[in-house]
Amino acid sequence: MEEIKQLAERLREFAAERDWERFHTPKNLTMALSGEVGELVAELQWLTPEESTEVMKDPEAGARVRSELADVFIYLTRLADILGVDLLSAADGKIREHERRYGVETHRGSARKAPPLF
Amino acid sequence: MEEIKQLAERLREFAAERDWERFHTPKNLTMALSGEVGELVAELQWLTPEESTEVMKDPEAGARVRSELADVFIYLTRLADILGVDLLSAADGKIREHERRYGVETHRGSARKAPPLF
Amino acid sequence: MEEIKQLAERLREFAAERDWERFHTPKNLTMALSGEVGELVAELQWLTPEESTEVMKDPEAGARVRSELADVFIYLTRLADILGVDLLSAADGKIREHERRYGVETHRGSARKAPPLF
Amino acid sequence: MEEIKQLAERLREFAAERDWERFHTPKNLTMALSGEVGELVAELQWLTPEESTEVMKDPEAGARVRSELADVFIYLTRLADILGVDLLSAADGKIREHERRYGVETHRGSARKAPPLF
Repeated sequence: MEEIKQLAERLREFAAERDWERFHTPKNLTMALSGEVGELVAELQWLTPEESTEVMKDPEAGARVRSELADVFIYLTRLADILGVDLLSAADGKIREHERRYGVETHRGSARKAPPLF
Repeated sequence: MEEIKQLAERLREFAAERDWERFHTPKNLTMALSGEVGELVAELQWLTPEESTEVMKDPEAGARVRSELADVFIYLTRLADILGVDLLSAADGKIREHERRYGVETHRGSARKAPPLF
Repeated sequence: MEEIKQLAERLREFAAERDWERFHTPKNLTMALSGEVGELVAELQWLTPEESTEVMKDPEAGARVRSELADVFIYLTRLADILGVDLLSAADGKIREHERRYGVETHRGSARKAPPLF
Repeated sequence: MEEIKQLAERLREFAAERDWERFHTPKNLTMALSGEVGELVAELQWLTPEESTEVMKDPEAGARVRSELADVFIYLTRLADILGVDLLSAADGKIREHERRYGVETHRGSARKAPPLF
């Protein structure tokens, strides 16, 4: 079974066993996702961009960042599952769209012409 | 190849071809992730929780929500790749931890005793 | 002296006394603001909209919400000060714009036609 | 009348005239605040910290940043008003607390020992 579907299934059981499904509306899960991203942001807010590339070398900060990434991924997977959105297929569509919009030749090197990546 | 590693690889090439790698520091990507989550939040902010469960039935709003979920997933995958974090393994560790902490019997039905899910 | 200018002045001194000014770039302060808003979101994520209107009646949750609002206001004031933006004047301009755009007669009662307020 | 109370009063009328009050629950307004902060984050995400200090010199980017700051301030003021929180008093309490916690002598220059400012 595919990785993300497997994770979504596990989270579905986790919520069902605890009767937490009624809390898991798209609105609430989006807030939970937003709150977790806020915790991730807080880990990096005072670092320079250069320091941020080294953050995983600090065992304590690195463990916190990994933990926040996990929380974000978990809520994102749960939210997409509740909404019936296939994350991989949605991402694939977005990347194809951006490949057309931001050509390799026309957008090389510039963050002015295009928001890098998306 | 696994789904998420494949997506990370594709995003790596996308950035490399456009010479956008220097923008993709953990600090910047975390901000980009946060900005995209903000757009997702904006889609659901005036809906009731009940209305939010029906959001995908509206073709226009549904397409926007799907598109924002894709953006969040793309930046999360790119950020985790840059940091060397395996999202699936990190999520697995977090779920095990929560299975221990929030027992099925002791935490059923309550959002007071425990933040549901995470 | 006006309230917000007075607060901005106090925060300026607070940072200067501790030699924290070099951390207070617009980029970093925006992340700090975002992180604090994330904490506020987390306080309300599992409440229904109706429960959220009663949140200040719970002494503990109410104190946390008040504390997060203070943090958000502090970072917003500091960020605007660093950028040279007069918050009151900027808000006044935005409200005038919205008064023109969202007429009382045409936009009454609807969150479809217009995002309420802004 | 004080500046912020005056702004809160104006926003109250703005919502009442359009019958938008029922959308303005603390939960919804917190999401709206979060969405606006996301837009602000997006303006600065690809800038270096140094570039971010110059953002107001670019007329277009500067106008967008000013507009986002206004939106954040408006929603924060409206949210605090709905919750019955006096922003200035709450901020004053927080600053006093931090003056005690982060002494000038002990916390000078370090973002390790203390999160700068708050």
